[in-house]
Amino acid sequence: MVSSKGRLDIALVHYPVYNKNRQEIASAVTNLDLHDLARAARTYGVGTVYIVTPIVDQQELVAEIMGHWQDGYGATYNQDRKEALTVVKVCSDLAQARELAGPLTVLATGAKEREGSLAWPDVRERLREGESFLILFGTAWGLTREVFAECEGALAPISGGDTGYNHLSVRSAVAISLDRLLGQHN
Amino acid sequence: MVSSKGRLDIALVHYPVYNKNRQEIASAVTNLDLHDLARAARTYGVGTVYIVTPIVDQQELVAEIMGHWQDGYGATYNQDRKEALTVVKVCSDLAQARELAGPLTVLATGAKEREGSLAWPDVRERLREGESFLILFGTAWGLTREVFAECEGALAPISGGDTGYNHLSVRSAVAISLDRLLGQHN
Repeated sequence: MVSSKGRLDIALVHYPVYNKNRQEIASAVTNLDLHDLARAARTYGVGTVYIVTPIVDQQELVAEIMGHWQDGYGATYNQDRKEALTVVKVCSDLAQARELAGPLTVLATGAKEREGSLAWPDVRERLREGESFLILFGTAWGLTREVFAECEGALAPISGGDTGYNHLSVRSAVAISLDRLLGQHN
Repeated sequence: MVSSKGRLDIALVHYPVYNKNRQEIASAVTNLDLHDLARAARTYGVGTVYIVTPIVDQQELVAEIMGHWQDGYGATYNQDRKEALTVVKVCSDLAQARELAGPLTVLATGAKEREGSLAWPDVRERLREGESFLILFGTAWGLTREVFAECEGALAPISGGDTGYNHLSVRSAVAISLDRLLGQHN
């Protein structure tokens, strides 16, 4: 949280995203994404992690996982996971996530260079000064062009330098993003 | 790699690590750790990702996973994963990882504050100036005290600020570490 005055929320988007062949799909929710994102979010003081999927079965799966760790056996087995999952909310679409998040700046993320994308230190500074953000992360092969068009902006792609390779898992991308925006780098 | 002259290798250690009750155990290798670490390593220009486990069955599992993605069906299905996994090597213990890595500085990582731990910007600078490092990451509840004692030093714990919570997955911790040491933060 450092001294950020703004709130940072994130959304893990399972629809609409691209598959390998650039077709629009709804990807599957995974247990590990939920845990990794919740733990990273709680570590960095993120407000809410929205899990976005229109598929009712998948929404129920998320509720089941959360129930296991919050009220079931998992709650006594591992308190840290119980606590982390309190930041998670399920949404059927991005409009609902926006509504729940309230007025804030919505930014998309992706691995490709885009004109006019925002530099990480600038968004970090805006957060620190009090602006609140909802940052969207796409599963599978990433957020569709329409999602980018609907956002107030996009963050610069995460770069590891001139390695000729840029294929982070969404779990890695979220962790790095939170560290860039909220981490104490000492 | 930005303009780092030193080489950065990492090791994912499955033994010796602590379990929840601070007993020394060998943890299980997971498919997703392998993929996430390999993809992050390749994105940031890491030299080698050592997967350390003394359990022969587990070593074979790693070889099988790598075979699937490098020569089997996975190799044609997803070239990016094939390429990422070229950085992975299996080792039976840390001594073997050190031997394969050659002369460099070995650092441990963990979530707890430790006296004399190294600041991230300092290690980034040493890398940039030409020093090579092997950085150890513990699975389960972290590297044992003996591992810390055998290393040349330890990195400061990753901090997300005063959130009262610090329980990142090892996948998140590795991704953030690589970004702190090798990322281009613009």
